[in-house]
Amino acid sequence: MSRFSLSFRLDPQHKAPLYRQIYLRVKQAIMDGKLKTGSRVPSVRAMASELGVARATVENAYGLLTAEGFLQSRGQAGTTVSAPASLSLPSSSPESETKVHKPINPMLPSVSSLPFQLGLPALDAFPRAIWSRIVSRQIRHTSMNDLGHPPLTGVDTLRNSVARYLQLSRGFTCRPEQIFICGGYAPVLDLIIGSLLLPGDGVWLEDPGYPVTQAFFRAAGATPVAVSVDDEGMNIQQAVADFPQARFAVVTPAHQSPTGVTMSLSRRMALLDWAAKQQAWVIEDDYDSEFRYQGQPLPSLKSLDTHGRVIYAGTFSKTLFPALRCSYVVVPESLVEKVEAYCPLRICATPPLLQSSIAEFIEQGHFYRHLKRMRQLYAERRGYLEQALTAAFSTDMLRINQQVGGIQLCAKLNRSLDDAVIAKCAREQGLAVQALSDWQVFRREAGDELRPNGLLMGFPNIISQEEAGFLSQRLRKIFSEISGVGKYP
Amino acid sequence: MSRFSLSFRLDPQHKAPLYRQIYLRVKQAIMDGKLKTGSRVPSVRAMASELGVARATVENAYGLLTAEGFLQSRGQAGTTVSAPASLSLPSSSPESETKVHKPINPMLPSVSSLPFQLGLPALDAFPRAIWSRIVSRQIRHTSMNDLGHPPLTGVDTLRNSVARYLQLSRGFTCRPEQIFICGGYAPVLDLIIGSLLLPGDGVWLEDPGYPVTQAFFRAAGATPVAVSVDDEGMNIQQAVADFPQARFAVVTPAHQSPTGVTMSLSRRMALLDWAAKQQAWVIEDDYDSEFRYQGQPLPSLKSLDTHGRVIYAGTFSKTLFPALRCSYVVVPESLVEKVEAYCPLRICATPPLLQSSIAEFIEQGHFYRHLKRMRQLYAERRGYLEQALTAAFSTDMLRINQQVGGIQLCAKLNRSLDDAVIAKCAREQGLAVQALSDWQVFRREAGDELRPNGLLMGFPNIISQEEAGFLSQRLRKIFSEISGVGKYP
Repeated sequence: MSRFSLSFRLDPQHKAPLYRQIYLRVKQAIMDGKLKTGSRVPSVRAMASELGVARATVENAYGLLTAEGFLQSRGQAGTTVSAPASLSLPSSSPESETKVHKPINPMLPSVSSLPFQLGLPALDAFPRAIWSRIVSRQIRHTSMNDLGHPPLTGVDTLRNSVARYLQLSRGFTCRPEQIFICGGYAPVLDLIIGSLLLPGDGVWLEDPGYPVTQAFFRAAGATPVAVSVDDEGMNIQQAVADFPQARFAVVTPAHQSPTGVTMSLSRRMALLDWAAKQQAWVIEDDYDSEFRYQGQPLPSLKSLDTHGRVIYAGTFSKTLFPALRCSYVVVPESLVEKVEAYCPLRICATPPLLQSSIAEFIEQGHFYRHLKRMRQLYAERRGYLEQALTAAFSTDMLRINQQVGGIQLCAKLNRSLDDAVIAKCAREQGLAVQALSDWQVFRREAGDELRPNGLLMGFPNIISQEEAGFLSQRLRKIFSEISGVGKYP
Repeated sequence: MSRFSLSFRLDPQHKAPLYRQIYLRVKQAIMDGKLKTGSRVPSVRAMASELGVARATVENAYGLLTAEGFLQSRGQAGTTVSAPASLSLPSSSPESETKVHKPINPMLPSVSSLPFQLGLPALDAFPRAIWSRIVSRQIRHTSMNDLGHPPLTGVDTLRNSVARYLQLSRGFTCRPEQIFICGGYAPVLDLIIGSLLLPGDGVWLEDPGYPVTQAFFRAAGATPVAVSVDDEGMNIQQAVADFPQARFAVVTPAHQSPTGVTMSLSRRMALLDWAAKQQAWVIEDDYDSEFRYQGQPLPSLKSLDTHGRVIYAGTFSKTLFPALRCSYVVVPESLVEKVEAYCPLRICATPPLLQSSIAEFIEQGHFYRHLKRMRQLYAERRGYLEQALTAAFSTDMLRINQQVGGIQLCAKLNRSLDDAVIAKCAREQGLAVQALSDWQVFRREAGDELRPNGLLMGFPNIISQEEAGFLSQRLRKIFSEISGVGKYP
């Protein structure tokens, strides 16, 4: 063991951060067979002390390797090498070759930190030191009364900061009282559904679309209406023709989830017209609009909402990080009282300590600076993946959707390939690729002309062209294994 | 203004903590008319510097005064005196005499920090310095990967710590995988209802009982069955006779919420027998069992559960503090897979940072020490209130339920008095007293023989005999105003 850990030195001048260097060296050692499956790697403390780095640096590297399935933590027994099944490594313990990753319900988004994981911002680029300083200061200033029952609807300072942010960045004005802080996307839906939905209400849902949305409306007794998405976003004309009497529509106008399409202005206007006539509610899930690579972020649908029919949902999971568990919903003035009355049943679950910390992070300008940096970074990292996929796949096999923002890439597959089979096999090999067909509102028969067929890939954590190449090759190999289309070199 | 702030000095030798001395002096000044309604009090900074104390000390005092309605924060305009309407003070600005507190939906628990607030542990006694140190250390050791999607079911270290705690203190053994960490009581119900409930399922509910429980089961399409509570807890025999085919029963066996009654052993056995025969699920809401003043806490119902029918719900809101937003549910082995499958829809909302901090707080022994101290403290503070109420009220007017634990006191009222009217008036005057009749499962007509008629009062934040006396006199005055029973001296 110690021979391994002594066999490399870190290069502080290297372009890659230290944790990344450790990650790459250990991964290489595993792939070269120098570290055998089942063997122990040095403890975080030992490795940190040998390399002369902070423990957090080693933890970052080990965490990444664990997430990718190369390492496995065995508690007291230490951390051992546990290569994903796809890499046929020399093995000293056959039982550790069994599947590392649990099968994931394909209808629901997985929430791992594997490569290609959807919905995950660039974790390496988040200003952790600043955040840590802010939270530490906030907790030192916690008074006795801050320990009591938290404000049902969220902490006032955060509601104020969000109102200012929305005005600056999303183009609409609201009072802080219209903003309800929530502990994630599900609590946002709980609040809306609990305050407003009646059983049997029709709900227009984008097809394909985020599976969680559908699950919640179904569970509440609503009638989901699948509305197809084309290159202008949700097909409003079709929806009005098919089911005009719906009471809700849920849309992702900035970058449609999952296709990445931006809803056209004429569709936006048609949607708002319908809502005004029908007295329906439009839920704008603005989950990643902040990340647009070309030009400014588009104004929100809410900014066009002259009749007060749009309920706007935002989240800090993508703009800050998912472990925060913090999101928010902005309701029209006419709904404030109704939603407030429901809040005692759905107390905001984000602890006030973290709400106040987010407010301070915004007010000190860190939030705006971070978003600006991420816009550039995500353009760069998407470029890595696009280039690597283009090199690994022919365009008649896989074709990348063009899009101008967001944090995931959507690629259409040739009809002869089955996206669900590929995604399942990829997941088993530790790649969190998702199948577009799993995001259908109603599952159609395989072979159906309209069946979406493609792959969804998160790219914010692909930090180099080299890594993008490595991951694309792994994916390409899976295609070969399954379909026999092409040969892996 | 400065004349007021200079007119008193703190006594570090005094038994009351510094914040309390400030609180009492300012309150006295308001009640004596030295500080007039509408006038500004010194800023926190100014007051702290004049008295030579930390700003947090003044913040604690002002926070308490604001919560009790004596002060009102006006943002940039500073903090002004705003006495509750009940105290007919000399007033210099009539408009500030209008009602300070919004009316509270009587069917739902309010969540203020007013005197008598239910469900609020002793905020002054929580070891904030230790907690702050632990959270600060945890955030310094946050690695990049900790920012990603959190574990759906909760952080492993916390699940392990809770399992050990339950074994030591609640008398049953479970695997950490049976424990699901949740962001409060509502998320616990969401998880159970979402995984297990079918529309139309019958649910036995304690009557009177916690209104939130009923609201959630109703919203999910269940059929609530009100089962009366007597001095042995829920009347199981009655429930079996009336509605044996229920699929759920929700009980608070340690100290029934709200009456404080402990469920007898024979009732416990009858409940478990029924559940085993009926294949029904018993939800044990063990919300405050930790606080028993005489002898050890009773073992949980779950510890008698040989057939695996009990779903156990616990919370850190009472054992630590409500602003944490953290609770947990322990499901029988047979349900683990089913609940896990539902978790992607209900991701644990408590941020991993705070989950890890709670785990460290438990593992370092602070949790056990704190509970032990609180058992003594709550016995003492309940004593203050009991003695003060006994002095202020005759027993034919108000009779205190005897109970051996919990953090709230239940007092029955004479039939000639209407608890709802008294509670409403008390709330308007800044006292968070609740009416027992508002906790009925089905609202009965006034005058009904069976109508519960009493008051619920939280006592953990009543820190002295003097304060208990002051509050009891305020309450007694409200009785006089409303009913003309007795005269206020």
